Formats: sequence, C-alpha cells, structure tokens
Amino acid sequence: MTLVPEIDGERLLGRLDAFARIGATPAGGVNRQAFSLEDRSARRLLAELAIERGFAVFQDAMANLFIRREGTDATLPPLLIGSHLDSQPTGGRFDGALGTLSAFETLEAVEDAKAETRMPIEVVAWANEEGSRFAPGVMGSMAFTGADISAWQSIVGSDGASLAGELGATISALPEATLRPLGMPISGYIELHIEQGPSLEKERLPIGIVTAVQGTRWLEISIEGAAGHAGTTGLAYRRDPMVAAVAAMHRLQTTIMPFDSSARLTVGRVTAKPGSINAIPQSVVFAVDIRHPQVERLDAIEAELRQVCAAEAEAQHCTVMIRRSFDMPGAAFSPDMVKTLEEAVNSLRLPHKQMISGAFHDALFLARVAPAAMIFVPCRDGLSHNEAEYVEPAYAVTGARVLLQAAIAAASPR
Amino acid sequence: MTLVPEIDGERLLGRLDAFARIGATPAGGVNRQAFSLEDRSARRLLAELAIERGFAVFQDAMANLFIRREGTDATLPPLLIGSHLDSQPTGGRFDGALGTLSAFETLEAVEDAKAETRMPIEVVAWANEEGSRFAPGVMGSMAFTGADISAWQSIVGSDGASLAGELGATISALPEATLRPLGMPISGYIELHIEQGPSLEKERLPIGIVTAVQGTRWLEISIEGAAGHAGTTGLAYRRDPMVAAVAAMHRLQTTIMPFDSSARLTVGRVTAKPGSINAIPQSVVFAVDIRHPQVERLDAIEAELRQVCAAEAEAQHCTVMIRRSFDMPGAAFSPDMVKTLEEAVNSLRLPHKQMISGAFHDALFLARVAPAAMIFVPCRDGLSHNEAEYVEPAYAVTGARVLLQAAIAAASPR
Repeated sequence: MTLVPEIDGERLLGRLDAFARIGATPAGGVNRQAFSLEDRSARRLLAELAIERGFAVFQDAMANLFIRREGTDATLPPLLIGSHLDSQPTGGRFDGALGTLSAFETLEAVEDAKAETRMPIEVVAWANEEGSRFAPGVMGSMAFTGADISAWQSIVGSDGASLAGELGATISALPEATLRPLGMPISGYIELHIEQGPSLEKERLPIGIVTAVQGTRWLEISIEGAAGHAGTTGLAYRRDPMVAAVAAMHRLQTTIMPFDSSARLTVGRVTAKPGSINAIPQSVVFAVDIRHPQVERLDAIEAELRQVCAAEAEAQHCTVMIRRSFDMPGAAFSPDMVKTLEEAVNSLRLPHKQMISGAFHDALFLARVAPAAMIFVPCRDGLSHNEAEYVEPAYAVTGARVLLQAAIAAASPR
Repeated sequence: MTLVPEIDGERLLGRLDAFARIGATPAGGVNRQAFSLEDRSARRLLAELAIERGFAVFQDAMANLFIRREGTDATLPPLLIGSHLDSQPTGGRFDGALGTLSAFETLEAVEDAKAETRMPIEVVAWANEEGSRFAPGVMGSMAFTGADISAWQSIVGSDGASLAGELGATISALPEATLRPLGMPISGYIELHIEQGPSLEKERLPIGIVTAVQGTRWLEISIEGAAGHAGTTGLAYRRDPMVAAVAAMHRLQTTIMPFDSSARLTVGRVTAKPGSINAIPQSVVFAVDIRHPQVERLDAIEAELRQVCAAEAEAQHCTVMIRRSFDMPGAAFSPDMVKTLEEAVNSLRLPHKQMISGAFHDALFLARVAPAAMIFVPCRDGLSHNEAEYVEPAYAVTGARVLLQAAIAAASPR
C-alpha cells in the first residue's frame, strides 16, 4: 500500500531557517546575490540534501540547478516545480527560497510516500532571478527558454565582477551536479511564491492562484518649456512644463486604473530642471510604469498616455518627447494548469482567489514553452525585497501543500 | 535763462559700457558681486565721476553710496533716485546699473542745465542688492530703512569670505566718500530698473509704471504615503503620495492664477523618494512659490493650498506637512509718486502701462519709509540674471528721460 504524500511542515520550516542563515543580514534578511559565495553555498546545501535522498542533480550552462525524481513513463518530459535561491542585496528570507524549498519538500514528500508519478518531477532553482548584481534578472529562465545569451558574456556586476567569471566559478563549485544542455522539453511548470503585494493578506486569503503575469512597460516623458522668473512672468507669458506634466499625470492617474482593475499605472520618479523654488522650470521629466496582462491594453494605455501628454504639453506651449525604456510582455498562464491548481486548492478546502501577478517571475518565461501557473501565499504588509519580509509559517506550509497536490496531479495526468 | 535739463543719451550709453567692463565676463555679462574687488571698482568709478562734477559723496556703514546735489530749501530731506551696482555671478549689464547710472545722468542733466530743485537730489547705489555672494539680498536698503543688522555680523559668503571683513574693506577702499549714519529722512524714492520679465516687450511698450511689488511666500509641502511595488499593489491598496501631490498641484494650478491676474503660483521643484521607476513613492516633496501684492490674498492662497493639499492627501490615505520657508510681504507704492511718474510719462507722450513688479527691489523697502515708485523698461526676451540680458539703447535712454522728468517734478513739489 502506498502512503498518501504529505508535506512535513516542520521539515520545510527548518529548511527555510537553514537557508536563511546563508547570507543572513543583521536585520533579519538575506544577502545572497546571484553567483556570490553565499549563492554557491545555498546551491551546495540543496544539492547535498538531494544527493542524500538519492535524487539525481543536474546543472546547465546558466547554473540553473535541477533535482530529478523519475516517473513511470520514461517517454514523458518532466514536470518542473521550483523558483530561485538568489536574493536582493537586502532581500527577504522567503522570496524565491519558499518556492524552491517547497518544491524540494514536495519531491521528498512523494519520495517519503514512495508514490509513483507518470512524469518525472524536477525541482529547479533558477539562476539569477533578481538581477540586482548582474542585470537583467530572470536570466536563468530566459536562457532555459531560448533567449539569446551571447550578449551576456560581457556583463559586469554592480560590484565590478565579471558575469562570465562568476558564472563559471559557480558551476565549478558544484561538480556533483551533472552538466546538461541548456533547455529541454518539459511537460509543465508550477511555481509557488510569496505575493509581494498586499491583497491576499488584506482579504485574509491563504492562497492566490495566478492566472497571468502582467506585462510591464516603462515610458520616460520629457516636457520642455521655458524657464522663467516665478514673480515676473505672468500667466499669458508662461510655457510651464510643470503645469503640463501635472495635468497629464492627473488625467492618467484618474482615468486608467479606476476603470481597468487589471491595469497598474505608477509615477515613481519626477524631476524639474533646474529645480529652483522661484523659477518656472525649463523642463520636467517623469517616468510612468504601466502594467497590464494584455499587450493590446498596454498598447492602448501607451497610446492614451502619448495623446494626453502631447495635448497637455501643447496647451502650455511646451514640447514633449516620450521614450519607451523597458518593455516586457506579460503572459497568460495555461488554463489547464490553472484548473489543476484550482482542483488542488478545492481538494484542500482552502479559501482562495484567482489573481494576476504584478511582478515578474521565472514562470513568465516558462509559460512560453509549457503549461505553467503559479501559487501565491500572503506576505506581511505586502513587503518584499526588504529584510523585514515575513510569511506566516502556516501560510508557508499551506502553499507547499497546494504545490504538492497540484504537482502530483500534473505529473500523473488522467 | 535756465536751460531745460535733457538726458545725454550718448553719455549714458557710454557710461553703461564703461561699467559693463568692470567685472566683464567672456559671455558678455558681468560678475560684480557685492563687496568684491569689482564692486569696489564700480563704486570708485561712480564716486570719481561725481567728484569730478563737484557733487558731494557719502557712504554709510552698509556701504550704500550717495551722491548729493543741493536744493534751494535746506530744510527738506532729499529725493533719492538710484538702484544698485552689484551683480549676480553670471549677471547682466543692465540689472541695477541702468537705474544707478540713469540716476547719475539725471543729476548731471540737472547740473548741466544749472537747474534748481527745491529738495536736494541724491543718487544712491544700494549695497548688496543681489545677495548671491552674501545672503540675504537687498541688504543695503533693508539696513537703511531700519532692519536689525546685528545678526549679519557673522555672515559668511558663498566664497567663504566674511561679510564683516569684506564690507569694511569696501568702505575703506573709498576714503573720498564721507561716512554718515545709516538711515535718514528722505522725501521720496524713484528707481528705474529693467522689467526682468517679458510683458513690456511682448506688448511693445517702452515704459512700465510700477504701482506695487509683489509679496512672496514659499511653501514646502511633503506628502507621505506608503512605498509599494508598482505591479503588485492594486488601486485599493495604494497610499500613493504622487497621486495626492499631482491632484493638489493640478487644482492649485487651475484655480489660482487664471482667476487672479495679480497672483503668481509656481511649482519649480518636486522630488519623489526613493525615486524608483517601478515603485510607488514613499513620499513626494514639492515647493510652491506664491506671489501677490496684497498680504490678505497671500494668506488666502496659502489657506487654499493648505486645504487642497490636506484634502488630496486624505483622499489617498496619505499625510501632509506644510512648512512656510520664506515670507516677504509686498508693498503698494505711493499713489502720489505713481501719479508723478504718470505725469512724467504723459508729458513725454510715451505708450506705457501700470504694472506690478514680480521681483524684489530696493524700492520695496524704501516704500516703507517714504513715497516711492519704480519705472520699468523692457529687456529682451524677459531675460535677467543672465549674461545675455539686453536692453535696447533707445529704451535705456527713454527710461532715463522719464526718471529725469519725474525727479525734477518730485524734487520741486508745487
């Protein structure tokens, strides 16, 4: 008789503590940036735990780390479950680690129960998700899913280190992991992650099922007017770029998000030049971060922004230049995989909601090559990329239980 | 028979050129900051020209320089006419110098014609009007009109020099000027100055008669919200200080100036912290420069600003702090002196308008102790505090002609 696989909550929480000690910061967070000595230590610990359990360990040329448990049908590509182990320089203990260690706990739970799955299951720890030391982020999953990585050879880190050198050293530091080619067919991908936002906590829901990842577009708007004396320049003689910028921002802030609950529009940066209290500025530059899961809506919002900025600049006899400085299309997750997650959550009778991820994740790229979806758990005050990041232990374990149920179902399709 | 006093245009323009050579910059402007060697040279040249014509020369403890021509009634205090000789570090040739040299030209024209005036007339060059080297500006006229200068002893200049030392050296460098006490009764004050704004040029008017100087108030507004991820934070969970700041600025920009032609409202500085493109800011700080000739309206505009900022901050669940960082009341000029200027302009059949000065001037302080008013002439493109500052020679001479007519009338009241 086969046991029913069960998450061992104490084991999972103990592992989270053990990994949080690697690169621990005095403020309770972690500094485990990609390809650093701390990142290598975390990879080593995970590989050793895997080898101890008899799982096969692999890595590829981007230092993505894989832990494989075979299935019953050798012709099927593996189901991947996982996340990442690297962190921001003042990062939290759960961002990435929760998903990676819950995936490993899932594999152990299946192994503990000596359960069979039709597909192989592989735990993956994607390399350099954060991108804080070596930009861009999500390097591992991008490379795995076919991105052209030739230009990355020359990347230099925020600390002056060479990506090529540090990547090579990271791979060499784990000779136990068999090297294999970058990229391969997979049957599906499931990633558990902390929400990094406030909605689940505020709505007192332990689980979010992520149906899509928002696309992100950054627009940098520069409005040029004419500098002038604040006192001597009457209204009729003003070409005030601040008035134009404020009017444009106000129109966008009051028309986009209130009427499209999937849209996000944020002005996080604004500068007036020369920035003198008693002078009409010569120019005002501001940046708008737009997010939406549908590329058509991103296009429409960008078009509206361009029209609004042009009209408000013209109304103040100013000129405007708009530059798109970043563009990352979103992805809708596989309805089949979302359904698998729904069934897992329902089987556990957990309150939950479907939601869209506002942050990037490795799953965004995996969704382009296989059925993928994500599970979110709440984090306190929505805080992430912050040493104070915190997840209630019960939520961490609940997330792992959903992942286990969903992985078993996805790895043994009817 | 007495000749009619007439401005000698060539002499005036020659003097403007001569003074523009003292501290001349390669870009065609002047750097003749207060109490510098260049400022002392300019004072010396003016004093030598005065002594050559037989005028008495005085200075006071603030280095204000006076050139006196006696009137027929020794019981009457003098009429003062003048402006300043110091400049911004990259200043123009006309700011201050035009008014001072036109006043000296006026005195010479009266002397040339051997005309009599009932009152003495004194040309004054106020010390440190600009305040760019030693803040605050308008030091000379403030001290002359009774400001407490005890705190100024310890002022250190932008170049590290001591005000007390440089002021003493400036006074000592002109031993020909008789020292006299700071402040004295005066019968009136007339100052010719460039507009430092665009309106006369745009309206093709050679003369503006200034009826008041605007008061100025600076308010620094800090709106505090909650930093958050641009993608993961839905509208309902945002406490976005940028939305609040933009809404407040937009309301103020669209309600104050369009409905009160004497008001000025300028946002010249705005900063979002931390200033990350992809994060809702934690706080937004902006500064508003408000000007109005009437202190009651300044109070009303400030009250409206406080109410608007509080309401918009509350609407975004943010908090607001407002600090008044500068407050300089304005002054209405004497209706009698304005009438004297009107009559002078009309006698010369010059197109003109009455207007309010948006910039400070020494006349602002003189108006508190005597009937005062100002004459403005156009400057190209409204430019001032700029090496490209330029006044058409014909406008310079026309301004001096108005000053002469007005000074003769004011110094010999009916």
